Amino acid sequence: MEMKEFYDYEGEISKLSNAVSLLEWDMRTKIPPKGVKDRAEVIGKLSRMIFEMSTAPKMAEFVEYFNRPRIYDSLSDVDRREVDLASKHYRRQKSIPPDKIEKFSIICSKGESIWQEARAESNFAKFQPVLEEIVEYLKEFTELYGYEENRYDALLEGYEPSTTTNDIKKIVDGLKTDLVPFIKKISQAKVPNDAILNGNFDKSLQEKLSIEVLKAMTYDLDGGRLDETAHPFTIGIGPGDVRVTTKYDPKNLKPSFFGTMHEGGHALYEQGISKEYRRTMVGTAASMGIHESQSRTWENMIGRSRAFWKFFYPKLVEIFPQYADIPVEDFYKAINVVRPSLIRIEADEVTYNLHIILRFEIEEAIINDRVKVADLPELWNSKIKEYLGMEPSNDAEGVLQDVHWAGGQMGYFPSYMLGNLYAAQFFARARKEIPDLDERIASGDLKTFREWQREKIHRHGSLYDPKDLVMKVTGEPLNHKYFMDYITEKFSDVYGI
Amino acid sequence: MEMKEFYDYEGEISKLSNAVSLLEWDMRTKIPPKGVKDRAEVIGKLSRMIFEMSTAPKMAEFVEYFNRPRIYDSLSDVDRREVDLASKHYRRQKSIPPDKIEKFSIICSKGESIWQEARAESNFAKFQPVLEEIVEYLKEFTELYGYEENRYDALLEGYEPSTTTNDIKKIVDGLKTDLVPFIKKISQAKVPNDAILNGNFDKSLQEKLSIEVLKAMTYDLDGGRLDETAHPFTIGIGPGDVRVTTKYDPKNLKPSFFGTMHEGGHALYEQGISKEYRRTMVGTAASMGIHESQSRTWENMIGRSRAFWKFFYPKLVEIFPQYADIPVEDFYKAINVVRPSLIRIEADEVTYNLHIILRFEIEEAIINDRVKVADLPELWNSKIKEYLGMEPSNDAEGVLQDVHWAGGQMGYFPSYMLGNLYAAQFFARARKEIPDLDERIASGDLKTFREWQREKIHRHGSLYDPKDLVMKVTGEPLNHKYFMDYITEKFSDVYGI
Repeated sequence: MEMKEFYDYEGEISKLSNAVSLLEWDMRTKIPPKGVKDRAEVIGKLSRMIFEMSTAPKMAEFVEYFNRPRIYDSLSDVDRREVDLASKHYRRQKSIPPDKIEKFSIICSKGESIWQEARAESNFAKFQPVLEEIVEYLKEFTELYGYEENRYDALLEGYEPSTTTNDIKKIVDGLKTDLVPFIKKISQAKVPNDAILNGNFDKSLQEKLSIEVLKAMTYDLDGGRLDETAHPFTIGIGPGDVRVTTKYDPKNLKPSFFGTMHEGGHALYEQGISKEYRRTMVGTAASMGIHESQSRTWENMIGRSRAFWKFFYPKLVEIFPQYADIPVEDFYKAINVVRPSLIRIEADEVTYNLHIILRFEIEEAIINDRVKVADLPELWNSKIKEYLGMEPSNDAEGVLQDVHWAGGQMGYFPSYMLGNLYAAQFFARARKEIPDLDERIASGDLKTFREWQREKIHRHGSLYDPKDLVMKVTGEPLNHKYFMDYITEKFSDVYGI
Repeated sequence: MEMKEFYDYEGEISKLSNAVSLLEWDMRTKIPPKGVKDRAEVIGKLSRMIFEMSTAPKMAEFVEYFNRPRIYDSLSDVDRREVDLASKHYRRQKSIPPDKIEKFSIICSKGESIWQEARAESNFAKFQPVLEEIVEYLKEFTELYGYEENRYDALLEGYEPSTTTNDIKKIVDGLKTDLVPFIKKISQAKVPNDAILNGNFDKSLQEKLSIEVLKAMTYDLDGGRLDETAHPFTIGIGPGDVRVTTKYDPKNLKPSFFGTMHEGGHALYEQGISKEYRRTMVGTAASMGIHESQSRTWENMIGRSRAFWKFFYPKLVEIFPQYADIPVEDFYKAINVVRPSLIRIEADEVTYNLHIILRFEIEEAIINDRVKVADLPELWNSKIKEYLGMEPSNDAEGVLQDVHWAGGQMGYFPSYMLGNLYAAQFFARARKEIPDLDERIASGDLKTFREWQREKIHRHGSLYDPKDLVMKVTGEPLNHKYFMDYITEKFSDVYGI
C-alpha cells in the first residue's frame, strides 16, 4: 500500500467536506427562508457520507497498515504526522456508536430550540431537563473517548489537541490572580468618551470600509469574498476559496469593522496553509485556539493599536467624513474602552478572558460531577460577581446567554482564552524579530507581519500540536504573562493609570 | 418491496443533486477565481456518486421489480409514471459504458476551450478536428441509446421526451413556409425607433426594477433570490429554493429586464410543481421545451405586450425618470423591434425560430451522415442567407457562434423553438379560458394567469409527456399556427403592415 492511495482516499472525503462547507456558508448567508428545511436534509446526507467514509473498513485498513512500526518508520515526517492525525481522528470517530451520535444530535437540536425559549423567558428551569440530558451524554462520551487524568480532557481534545485540563488550570490560576486586580484598577479610572463611535453608518459604506481593511490586511479577494450574515464566521471551502462574513450595525461601526478584522485574521490563516498539504489533515488549522489567536491578533493587537490607525484613519475619514474633525487619538481611546459587561460577546479584550474562565470552571466541575446542573444559575452569579463585580438581574443575562451548551459543546470555551494568550505571546515574539514592526504597521505595511505569521504559523497547518507550535515559534511554553504585559502596557497608557 | 423504499432511494439521489445545484449556482455567481479548479473536482465527485447510485444494482432491482406486470398494474397512476420515468432514465444511463462517458466529457472540455480560441480567431479549421471527434461519439451514442426511425431521435429524447425527428420536421416545414415570407414583409417596413432603450442605467436601479417585476410576476422571493451572472440561468436547488440570475448592461435595460422575466418564467414553473412530488422524477419539469415555453410566455407574450406596460410603465418611470416624457406606446414599439441578426442570442421573437430551424437541420444532417463537419461553414452561410437574407462576414458570426456543439450538445436546440410554439398555443388557450386576460394584465393582476399556468402545467411536473400535456391543456397536438397567429397579429399592428 502506498501513501498516495491513502491521500487519495482522504481527498475524496475532503471533496465532500468542501461541499458541506459551501452548503453551510449558503445556509448562513444567502438561502431563502423556504429552502432551509431541505438544506438541513442535504447537509445531513453529506455529513453521514463523510462519517461513513471516515469510519469505513478501508480507513481501518489504512490506519492499521501505516501504523505498523516498520512502515511508519519508513515514512517522511509529514506523512507520519498525517498518519498520526488520521489515526487519532479515526479512533475518536469510532469510539461512539453511530446511533448514539444520532440520538445526541437530535437532543442537541431540541436543546437549542428549548434554550431559545428559555432564554426569551429568562427561565432556567425550562432549560434544565434537556441540559441534564446533554450533560449525561457528554459524560458518557468522555468515558468512550477515554482520558488519562480528567474527564474534561476528553472534551478538550476535540478542540485543543494535547492540551489537558491541568494545563488550563495552571494558566487560569495565574491569569486570574493578575487580571482581577488590574480590572478593579481600570474600573476606578475615568472612561474615555466612546459616544463618538455612535452615529449613522450607511451599510454599503460600511461594506466598502470592510473591503478596504481586508485588502490592507493582505487578505486575497481572488481567493475569497465578504458577505453579510447574522452570526459572523469564516469558512474555508477549499484552499482557493476562504470566505469571510460580517454584520452591519447601522448605528455603530464597531461590529462590522472589528468583526471583519477578526474574521479576516482567521481567513489569513486558512489562506496561508501550504498548498502542498491540500486535501490532507495536516492541511487544516492546528487547533481552535491557534485559529482564534490569529483572529485576535488582527482584531485587537493590530486593529486596536495606535500604529494601525495612524495609517488607516485617513481611509476611515474618506469613507465617513464625520470623523474628519475628531482627532485620531480620541478615536483610538474610544475603541479601547474597557467596560465590564455581563454578556461575553460584548466584552472588551481586558475582561473577555474572565468570561471564559468562569465557563471553563463551571464546565469542568459539571463534567466531573462536582456540581449539579440545577445549581448552575447560582454558581454562575456568584462567580461573575467575584470576577467582574456585577450581578445578573436574570438568567438570560447570566447562565442562559450562550448557545454552546444547548448545542452540546463543552470544552470549546477555553479555546477563546487560549487564543488571546497565544496571540499575545506570538505578537511579543514578532516584535522581537521585527524591531520596526510598529513603524511598518503605521506606514501601512501589514505584509511584513503577515509574512512572519505565514512563515511561522500559517503554512504549517496541523504539522505541529499547538503546544509544540508555541514552543517552536516563541521558544517557551504558553505563558500568560505576555498577555498581561500587553494589556497592562496598553491600557495603563489609554487610562493614564 | 414497497414504493416507499424506492422513493427513499430516489430521495437520497435528489439530495446529492441539490448539493450539485448549489455548487453550480455558486460557481456561476459567487465563487472567487481561485476556487474554480477545486470546485470542478467537488462537482465531479458528487456527479460520479449520483451516477453510481442511479446505475447501482439496487436501482436495477427496483426497475426490474416494479415493472413486473402484476406489480406495475397494482400501482397508482403517479407511481406508475414514476416507475416509467425512472426506468427510462436508468436504461439510458446504463446504455453507455462509464469510461466512454468519461472520455466524452474530457473531449467536450477540450472542445469548449478549442472552440473559444477558434471563435476568437474566426477559424473553423481549428475547431473542425475536435468537432469531428465529438460527432463520432454522438453518433455512437445514438446507436447505444437506440432509436426507431432516425438516429437524431436518440438525442432529442434527452431533452424532449417522446418527440421524434419527424414530429419536428413537420413543424419546421409548416413554420418555415409561413415565417420566411412574413419576415420579408416586416423587413421592408419602417423600423420603430428603439434608440430610446439606450442610455445610462445604474446597476442597483436595474436590480431594483428586476425585483419589482419578479414580484409583479408573483415569483416567491421567500423561496428564491436574484443574483448577477455572466450567462443567466434559473436553478432549482430544492422545492423551496428556486434561484434566478440576470446580467446588467449599463447602457441598455433590455438584457436585465427581459432576461429577468425570462428566468422568472422558468422559476414560476419550478416553484409551481406540486410539493407532493418532492424528491421524485415526476416532480421535475416535463421537458426542456415545456420549460422554455414558460419563460417565453413571460418574456414575450406578457413582457412585450401593451397590456403589461399599461400597468408596469409607471413603475419603470418611477425608477428611471428619464422615461417620464416618452409615451408608453413608443416604448412598447421599441421593445418590439424586429431586426434580423446573424447572431441567435440577439434575435427577436419573430426571427428566433429560424435560427433554431437552421441548427436543427444541420444537426440532423450531420448525425445521419448526410453532411460532413468540414462542409458546415458553407452550409450554414447558405441557409442563413436563405432564411434571413444575410451573409456572415466570418465564421465567428456564423457556424462558430454557439458553444453547444463544442460542449457535446446536439438535440437541444429544437427545445427553444418548441418552447416558442408551446407558449403561443398555451397562451391562446388561456385567452379563451380567461376572456378578460388582457384587462387583468393591464390592471397588474398577473396572478390569475399564473394560477392558470400552475393548475394546467406547473403542478404536474413530469406527470405527462410534453405531447400529452399539450393535448390535455389545449385539446389538440402542437400546431405552429398559434405562433404564426400571435406574431402576425402583434407585429402587423406594431409595424402597421
